[in-house]
Amino acid sequence: MSCSVAASLEEVGDWWTLLIVRDALLGLRRFEDFQGSLGIARNILSNRLERLVRSGILERRAYQDHPPRREYRLTEKGRDLLPVIVTLMQWGDRWLWPPGQHPFRLIHRDCRQETQARLVCQECGGALTARNTTRMPAPGLDLSLLNAVQLRLVR
Amino acid sequence: MSCSVAASLEEVGDWWTLLIVRDALLGLRRFEDFQGSLGIARNILSNRLERLVRSGILERRAYQDHPPRREYRLTEKGRDLLPVIVTLMQWGDRWLWPPGQHPFRLIHRDCRQETQARLVCQECGGALTARNTTRMPAPGLDLSLLNAVQLRLVR
Repeated sequence: MSCSVAASLEEVGDWWTLLIVRDALLGLRRFEDFQGSLGIARNILSNRLERLVRSGILERRAYQDHPPRREYRLTEKGRDLLPVIVTLMQWGDRWLWPPGQHPFRLIHRDCRQETQARLVCQECGGALTARNTTRMPAPGLDLSLLNAVQLRLVR
Repeated sequence: MSCSVAASLEEVGDWWTLLIVRDALLGLRRFEDFQGSLGIARNILSNRLERLVRSGILERRAYQDHPPRREYRLTEKGRDLLPVIVTLMQWGDRWLWPPGQHPFRLIHRDCRQETQARLVCQECGGALTARNTTRMPAPGLDLSLLNAVQLRLVR
């Protein structure tokens, strides 16, 4: 497993997992709310929440003692999935609905505008696209971890 | 299915599907190359490629007549998945490896620098984060498509 795309998919690449993260980003915290939003079987939801807590994406916090009640909150690692969720949303907005018909709009609270997200280079500020980006092996990467096709790609 | 995140996951939310798109973004086009890179069973690869062609993410083109040979190229819809792949990669780079140890670096060919991708607001240029973004129902969205929890979120 020598690629972060594959490693990330291993950790959050499950359909329900990303939808739970989406709902947590929208403000949901309680088991019943996730269940009501997703219409997911309770045992599957329990299992996915447990995995998200184990990977440090959600943390469980008590919000009531009698009777004991716990809620789930995103950690920094979890909040850092926002770009994955937003780019998935935006791809769907563009390609899976008739033009202009997508159901939700992204709002940037800082400028209070309806917006589109742009992926830009932190060095020069230019747009990052399929045509102007590539990847290189990190200095010192153990190339013996790569198979023949991957080796050809990095050379 | 009233949300683009869910709709996108329905279309590309399969582990192998996103890894095929990753490899196509890196320049792979031929069945044997995808197979060699992914180490995936041939029947599963055939099935995923077929689905990607049917969804208009890849297109099949003949590159040789005798014997007939075909390759797979990303369409505009497919190239438009670059932000999803890059944000997944970057999340993994940050959270699934020890600091600085992630195996591949993102290069922006336009400025020729190793870079990080930033997700910014196209209106004001500011960073989009979990804390400063939200979503709103589009004008005219049929709210009867939402369940009780979703309705609460949009109100």
